[in-house]
Amino acid sequence: MKAFSDPASVAVVGASADPAKWGYWLARGALRGAHRRKVHLVNRSGAVIDGIATVPRLRDLPEPPELAVLCVPAATVPEVVEEALDLGVRAFVCITAGLDPARETALAGRIRAAGARLIGPNCLGVYDSMTALELAWGNFTPGALGIVSQSGQLGLELAGLAGEAEVGVSRFVSVGNQADVTAADVLADLAGHDRTEVVVLYLESFQDGRALVDTLAGLRERGKPVIVLTVGASAAGQAAARSHTGALTAGTEVVRAACRAAGAVLVETPAQAVDVAQLLLDAPAPVGRRIAVVGDSGGQGAVAADVLSRNGLELPELGAVASRVAALLPPGAGVRNPIDLAGAGERDLSTYSTLVDLLLESGEVDGVVLTGYFGSYGADAPSLEPAELAVVDAVGAVAARHGRPVIVHSMSRDSVAVRALREHGIPTYATIDQVGWSLGLATELAVTRPRATDHVPAAPGEERAALDYLAARAVLAGCGVRYPAAAAVSGLDDVRAAAGRLRPPYVLKAAWLAHKTESGGVVTGLDGPEAAATALADLIGRLGAGAYVLEEMDTRPGTVELIVGGRRDPSFGPLVLVGAGGTASELYRDVAVELAPVTVEVAGEMLRRLAAYPLLTGWRGAPATDVRAVAEVVAAVSELIAGRPDMAECEVNPLLAGPDGVVGVDALVVPR
Amino acid sequence: MKAFSDPASVAVVGASADPAKWGYWLARGALRGAHRRKVHLVNRSGAVIDGIATVPRLRDLPEPPELAVLCVPAATVPEVVEEALDLGVRAFVCITAGLDPARETALAGRIRAAGARLIGPNCLGVYDSMTALELAWGNFTPGALGIVSQSGQLGLELAGLAGEAEVGVSRFVSVGNQADVTAADVLADLAGHDRTEVVVLYLESFQDGRALVDTLAGLRERGKPVIVLTVGASAAGQAAARSHTGALTAGTEVVRAACRAAGAVLVETPAQAVDVAQLLLDAPAPVGRRIAVVGDSGGQGAVAADVLSRNGLELPELGAVASRVAALLPPGAGVRNPIDLAGAGERDLSTYSTLVDLLLESGEVDGVVLTGYFGSYGADAPSLEPAELAVVDAVGAVAARHGRPVIVHSMSRDSVAVRALREHGIPTYATIDQVGWSLGLATELAVTRPRATDHVPAAPGEERAALDYLAARAVLAGCGVRYPAAAAVSGLDDVRAAAGRLRPPYVLKAAWLAHKTESGGVVTGLDGPEAAATALADLIGRLGAGAYVLEEMDTRPGTVELIVGGRRDPSFGPLVLVGAGGTASELYRDVAVELAPVTVEVAGEMLRRLAAYPLLTGWRGAPATDVRAVAEVVAAVSELIAGRPDMAECEVNPLLAGPDGVVGVDALVVPR
Repeated sequence: MKAFSDPASVAVVGASADPAKWGYWLARGALRGAHRRKVHLVNRSGAVIDGIATVPRLRDLPEPPELAVLCVPAATVPEVVEEALDLGVRAFVCITAGLDPARETALAGRIRAAGARLIGPNCLGVYDSMTALELAWGNFTPGALGIVSQSGQLGLELAGLAGEAEVGVSRFVSVGNQADVTAADVLADLAGHDRTEVVVLYLESFQDGRALVDTLAGLRERGKPVIVLTVGASAAGQAAARSHTGALTAGTEVVRAACRAAGAVLVETPAQAVDVAQLLLDAPAPVGRRIAVVGDSGGQGAVAADVLSRNGLELPELGAVASRVAALLPPGAGVRNPIDLAGAGERDLSTYSTLVDLLLESGEVDGVVLTGYFGSYGADAPSLEPAELAVVDAVGAVAARHGRPVIVHSMSRDSVAVRALREHGIPTYATIDQVGWSLGLATELAVTRPRATDHVPAAPGEERAALDYLAARAVLAGCGVRYPAAAAVSGLDDVRAAAGRLRPPYVLKAAWLAHKTESGGVVTGLDGPEAAATALADLIGRLGAGAYVLEEMDTRPGTVELIVGGRRDPSFGPLVLVGAGGTASELYRDVAVELAPVTVEVAGEMLRRLAAYPLLTGWRGAPATDVRAVAEVVAAVSELIAGRPDMAECEVNPLLAGPDGVVGVDALVVPR
Repeated sequence: MKAFSDPASVAVVGASADPAKWGYWLARGALRGAHRRKVHLVNRSGAVIDGIATVPRLRDLPEPPELAVLCVPAATVPEVVEEALDLGVRAFVCITAGLDPARETALAGRIRAAGARLIGPNCLGVYDSMTALELAWGNFTPGALGIVSQSGQLGLELAGLAGEAEVGVSRFVSVGNQADVTAADVLADLAGHDRTEVVVLYLESFQDGRALVDTLAGLRERGKPVIVLTVGASAAGQAAARSHTGALTAGTEVVRAACRAAGAVLVETPAQAVDVAQLLLDAPAPVGRRIAVVGDSGGQGAVAADVLSRNGLELPELGAVASRVAALLPPGAGVRNPIDLAGAGERDLSTYSTLVDLLLESGEVDGVVLTGYFGSYGADAPSLEPAELAVVDAVGAVAARHGRPVIVHSMSRDSVAVRALREHGIPTYATIDQVGWSLGLATELAVTRPRATDHVPAAPGEERAALDYLAARAVLAGCGVRYPAAAAVSGLDDVRAAAGRLRPPYVLKAAWLAHKTESGGVVTGLDGPEAAATALADLIGRLGAGAYVLEEMDTRPGTVELIVGGRRDPSFGPLVLVGAGGTASELYRDVAVELAPVTVEVAGEMLRRLAAYPLLTGWRGAPATDVRAVAEVVAAVSELIAGRPDMAECEVNPLLAGPDGVVGVDALVVPR
C-alpha cells in the first residue's frame, strides 16, 4: 500500500493541457510533489503542460514509475496496464470510468497476478498531506482528517466542507469500484498513518461488513474514531422478508448497529460528518451527556436547550453550583440552565470564563455550550477586542485544565475572537444546529465502546423452508427460551387426549403457518377437551388437515408483549433484534438491533433504548417484569443465530414478559 | 404605528460617542436616515458624536421629535418619558432593560393614556428598509424579509444569517417585553407593508394566541407567509395535567397546531427559518411533495434522496418520462430517481437544463433538486464558465416557465454561476441539509391552508372537580358519542337488578375515580348478576362505598383503542386531540392536535397523520374500522370544548373503533 501514499516516482497517463480536463488537474497536482519524487507526464500528442514536457507513451519514460495514474479512455486502459506491468509499475490509480464489469474484474485479476495493486477504477484519486502526494481533483488543505469514500465526488464534497471549516485533510482516498483495493484495506492502512486523527468514511455497499467492523474498531482503539456516512435510509423497510425480524432489520439500522459494535458513529450528511470531525479534532472527547448552556440572550439559550435536547443531550438543573452562578449575575438572571447572563457579559466579559470554570469545576455538567454574542464583541466594537481576546484565552485555559468540551455558537462566523477560540481547541460554529449535531454525535461516539463480536463469516446460502412450529420451539427452547407445554394433534381423539394431559385454558394452532394469527390459524381460550375438539374440527374445516398443536395458554395478567429475533445479514452476518411486540414494533419501529452475539449486559442496554422500556419496569403501578430474564433471552437468541451458520432467521414473537419470567408464545426458525 | 416605521423626526436619547455602547450604534443608525427626517441626538454631557452636535435634554431640541428612542439608565426612564410626553412625543422605542415589572406596567399605562405608543422596554430597536429607519444594533441589508422577535438578540441572529444568505430585511422589530405594542400589533401592521413578502416571527410566550392565529392567517391570505420559531420543546410533557389530553398537548405541539390553523410553518432554529425564507422569497411556492433529484454523482444523489425523505418529501419512481430521461444519459446511468448523470453533465452541460425541463414537463414531479457539482464547473475551470452560465440561464427560464421550484445544492458556496442561479429565482444552498429542511418546510407551508376557527376567547378560570362518570358520559353522549347502556349501583341488590336489565357481560366501575383502571377500580368480563354482585362486594371492600356503575361491556373483536380529548389552553383556547390509545399515545406520542373546533374533514386529516392510522383501515387482513365515525367523534368533541367556555377538559379514553362504529368506554369532563 505504501506505493499509494509515498511512491518514489509517479506517472500521470492521460495528462492534459486543458484546464477543464481531469488530466490537467492530476498533472498539476502531481507536479506539486516534484520536490519529493520524480513526476512524469504521459500525453498521447506529447503536449507541453504548464511548461513541462510530456512523452507519448509510458515506455518513452527514462525509468518506470512506481505508481501510474490512469485517466485515459476506457478502451485503452487494458493496453496501458499491460505496458505498465511490463515496465514494472507496482501500483495503479485508475480514474477512468465506464469499463464493463467483466473487463474490470479481469483487469484487477491481471494486476494482482503481476504482484501489483489497483485503486479504482472509477475513482477520483488519492491525496496524502505527509508526502505531498496530490493525485486528485480539487485543492486540499493539510490537516488531520482522513477521508475514504466510495463516491469520489462525495469525498470531494467532504474535503471541500472540511476546508471551509478549516479542518485539514491528512489523506484522501477515493476507492471507486474497489476492484482490488477496498475501503477496508485503505482504512487498515490509516491505522499507521501518523497525521490522521479522525476518519470520515462514505460507503454505499458493505461486502464483508464484519471485517470492516473489526477494522473500524481497530482504528478506534488507536485513538482514531471513524465517522460513517451511508445511504439507503429512504429505502428502509422495503426489503421483503419472511419474518418480522427481517423487515425490521433492513436499511441503515444495521449499519448503525455495526457502528455501535465498532465504536464508530453514523451521520446523515456530509455537513454533519465534517462538523463532528471538527469537534473530535479540536476538543477533548465528551465524557457524558450533561451540558450547561450559557448565553447573553434568553432566547438564544432557550433555542440551544431545545436543539441540544433533540440531539440526545441533557440540560440538568444546576445544584450546589447554582448559587455561585447566581452571585456572578444580575438579580433575576436565569440560573436554571440555560443560564442567561442578562447583561453580565456586556458589563464584564470575564464573566464568560469565570462561569465556564465554575460550571466545569462543579462536576455537575460534562461540558459547556456558549451561545450568542461571544466571539462578536470585538468584531462590532474594536475597542472591546483586547478584552474579548483575553477572555478567549481564559476560556481556552479553563477548558484545557478541565479536559472537558467547551463549544461556542457565535453570531460571528469568522471574527478574530472566533479564530482565537479555534486555536485554543474550542470548536466554534455559526449555527446552533451544528453545535447540536456535533456535540450529540461526538457524545454518542464517546460513550460507545467497541466490543468484540467473535465472528467467523458464514458462506452465502439460500433460505430454506421454515421448520414447523414444534421443531422451531424445540430449537429456541434448547437455547433457554421457556415455552408452555404443548402436544402435536391431528384428529379429534388426539386433541381430547392431549387436552387431558395439559392444563386449560388451551390455544390451538395451525403449526405449519408462518403468520398463524393473520391466517385465522389460532384459537385461544379453549377451556376444556370438548372446546378443543370443536375448535380443531372448525380449523380442519377451514384450513384442511395438517400439523396442529395444542398448547397451554399463558394467562398471566399484565404481561408485556415483545419480539426477539435473529437474522443473518448478507453483509454484517448475524444480527439480534428486540422490540416492543404487537403492532408497536412495526408502526413505531420501536426496536433495538445489534450485531450478534451480545452479552446479557448489552442486551439490557438494548432494552433500555426501547421507547416501550417503561412498560417493563412497572408501568402505572403495575409490577415490574423480569427484565433480566428478557435480556437473557435476547442474549440466548443472539448466541443461537451467531453459532448456527445453517440458520437464516429465528424469532420468538411474541415473547410475553411478566414479573415471574418470560414465556415464548410463537417460534420461527428458517434454516439455510 | 406609522410613527414606528416612518417618523417625521426622531431623537436618540442616551446617544453615546463610545462605539462599544448601544447609544452610539443607535445614533449612527438614526443618522443614516437624516436625508429623510430630522435626527436629534440627546446626550447628558452634550458630547459631539461622529461630528454631530447633541443636546443634554429633550427639551433643548428646537422641536419635539415624533419618535424617541430611549437608551438611558433604567432609573431615569420615567423622567425622560414624562418630559417627552409633555413635549408631544407620540412614540417611544425603549431599549433600556431592567425596569421592574410594576414600573414597566405603569410606564406603558402612562404612555397609552397620553395617546402615545411604546415598543419595549428591553428591546433592541426597529429597522425599516423603505424609510431608511435604522434604530437598532447591527447592519441590515434591505430586502423582503420581515423579522419580528420577542428576543432582540435572536432577532439580530436571524438578520445576520439572512444577510449571509443575501436575504435582505424589509422591517425588523424587536418587541421586547411588549408592555404596550405587541408582536401581534407589529404583525398586523406588516400586512400593509409593501416591501415585506415573508415574515419570520420569534415568540416565547403567546398571550392571546387565537388573535395571533387570526393575524398570521391574515398575512398568509395577503401572500405573506409567516415562519414561526418558538422554544420549549425540551420542556414538553412536563406540564402536570389531570387528563391524558392535558399531558399530551403541552409544549410546542400546541404552537404547531396553531401554525397549521394559521397557514404558517413552525421551524426549530434560526438557520432553518432563514433557509426556508430564502426558498419562499426566491422560488415559486411548492405545489406537492414529489421531487426528482438530479446529480452528477450517485453518492450525492443517494444522500439527497435520504435527506429529502427525512424531510417529508417523496421521490417517486419515474413513469413515462423515464425512457426520455434515459435517452439523454449514458447506458447504465440511474434513471430511477435519484437520477445519476453518470458523466453526461461533463460531456454536455446543457443536459442539466434539458433534464429539468423534461421532468417538470412530465407532471410526474412537483419540483427538481440538483445536487453536486453544478454551479462549480466554471469556478474550477474558467473555460467552462460561459457554457455553465448559459445553462444557468436555461434552467432559470425552464423553472420560470413551469412555475415550479428548482433548488440547487452546489459544492460552490459563492461562484459566479451560483450567484446567477439566485438571480434567476433558483434557491441555492451549500449543504443538502439546508435543501432538505427548506424544501420540506416550504412544502408543508404551501399545502397548509389557513382555516377559520370561529372563536370567542373565554375568560380565564380555575379547573373545578371532574364530573362523575355518568354525568361525564351524559355530556359526551349529548354531543354524539355512543356509550354502552349503564346503571348507577351502590349495593348488592341494586347491582343484581341492574344486571337483569343489561346485557352481559358487564363491566363494573368505581365511577368517581379519574384513573379507574390504574386504581384497581374496574372489573371486566362479569357474566351475570351474581358475578356482578361479587365484584361489587369486593370493590366496596377495597375502595369503600361510592358511586359505582355497571355497564355493558363492548366485546366486539378486533376493535382499535383510541383517545379523543379536548382541552382549553391558556393561550390558544380550545384544542382537540386524537391519538392511538393504550400506551401508544404516551410512549410514542402518537397523537394529532388541532385548534378546536375542527370539521369532520380536518378530523379525518388528523387521523391520517397518526402512525397508528393503518390499524384503522384494515391491518393485516382485519376489516377496516368505521373511520368516518371516529372523525365525527373528534369533530364533536372539538365542538364541545369550543362551545362550552365553562369546560376545562373533556376526554373519551378509550374510544373503541370497530367496523360497525365507535363506542366510548370511559369519560372525563372537567368544568371550570
